[in-house]
Amino acid sequence: MPEHIVTSFDIDLKELSRRVVEMGGQAERLVADSVEALVKRDSELAQKVIVLDGPVDLLQREIEEKAILTIARRQPLAGDLREIVAAMRIANDLERIGDLAKNTAKRVLALTGEFHPQKLVRGVEHMSSLVQEQLKEVLDAYAGRDDARALDVWRRDGQVDVLYTSLFRELLTYMMEDPRNISLCTHLLFCAKNIERIGDHATNVAETVHYLATGQQLADERPKQDTSSLTSVPFPA
Amino acid sequence: MPEHIVTSFDIDLKELSRRVVEMGGQAERLVADSVEALVKRDSELAQKVIVLDGPVDLLQREIEEKAILTIARRQPLAGDLREIVAAMRIANDLERIGDLAKNTAKRVLALTGEFHPQKLVRGVEHMSSLVQEQLKEVLDAYAGRDDARALDVWRRDGQVDVLYTSLFRELLTYMMEDPRNISLCTHLLFCAKNIERIGDHATNVAETVHYLATGQQLADERPKQDTSSLTSVPFPA
Repeated sequence: MPEHIVTSFDIDLKELSRRVVEMGGQAERLVADSVEALVKRDSELAQKVIVLDGPVDLLQREIEEKAILTIARRQPLAGDLREIVAAMRIANDLERIGDLAKNTAKRVLALTGEFHPQKLVRGVEHMSSLVQEQLKEVLDAYAGRDDARALDVWRRDGQVDVLYTSLFRELLTYMMEDPRNISLCTHLLFCAKNIERIGDHATNVAETVHYLATGQQLADERPKQDTSSLTSVPFPA
Repeated sequence: MPEHIVTSFDIDLKELSRRVVEMGGQAERLVADSVEALVKRDSELAQKVIVLDGPVDLLQREIEEKAILTIARRQPLAGDLREIVAAMRIANDLERIGDLAKNTAKRVLALTGEFHPQKLVRGVEHMSSLVQEQLKEVLDAYAGRDDARALDVWRRDGQVDVLYTSLFRELLTYMMEDPRNISLCTHLLFCAKNIERIGDHATNVAETVHYLATGQQLADERPKQDTSSLTSVPFPA
């Protein structure tokens, strides 16, 4: 924390940070609920996720507005300015995480009544548990301004990508084996992609926490290992 | 433009706006090239798109930094503050548009050598031409601070969604008819989704231009008509 007398400015900064943490908790809940709705085929829970994404969007706008007003009113210097910019950036990522969870929830509604073998859903669930852990870790890193913990999340981004690429291949194979799986697998592909992107946003947050703690931007190159967009599964001859 | 004596502050604002317009041109180029690469199966052009997304990301960071420094230094009042916030928001959307074009380009590389019937690609091309026009219109609306034009783009968001939902069903049907189409159609589904999301970002920009021109936020509810995440195509009995 920067050294200055406790003022209404400190209160502004704390309030901003408090709202980001609150928003983080809401985003985590949406991700967990959307995947639970998918696994349990729970339309009611899916509907709840769709509705509860609204307040997350609203919170993002509030954080952005408060951040900008604080910059304009207080003319903060380096460390304080970083606090405010970090709050805006993280709120932006959390808002997108909420959108992605909402998209998964919508797909749960599409799949009501579909042929729905549990083994196809398991891969998505497994990938999601990894991403949820990353998200939790990075939000804790933000709350504690813990650079080491943020870097740890950042380094693990590749793990999710590897899982996603393997799941992508697997789902394509299922489609080829039995065309009755196509509709389900297509939606699962998009759900898996949503979760992979949630992981990307968690990695963005890790970069922001690093910037907040050190004033440095991480190098551009992430340890990315998602090659699914380069993956093609040939139809067996 | 706000009424005050021409100062280095005006120069700051003009420079910010100039960079956003420049970034808009680059994003438009990436979108056009990514779709051309897909239609013509042009791996070299696809590689170019992947490389040229880098400078777009960089420009976004520069715009954000300049915007924040300008707010901190100049303590701008309402109209000027809106100019700066709008520049940040639009740069954010344009950066994401670049990412989506890059993802399409990566899929072109995955499809090299795949069975590639042109009629399947046509639907994506048609949808893209509509989105490219929306993007061009909304960037012109920004350059001219033209609220009416921005609202026109905003109202047409539903058209893209209708096309996307219909394309989604069509691609699913192709997969069911002939499993050799599955790998291609899956990538085309993701390309179509990329383009639909580019349309969403163009709509975001329209909302920002409206906010810039009027000081008002548009109502939350967009004229959304994408029901693809709710779409399920039953396997023909």
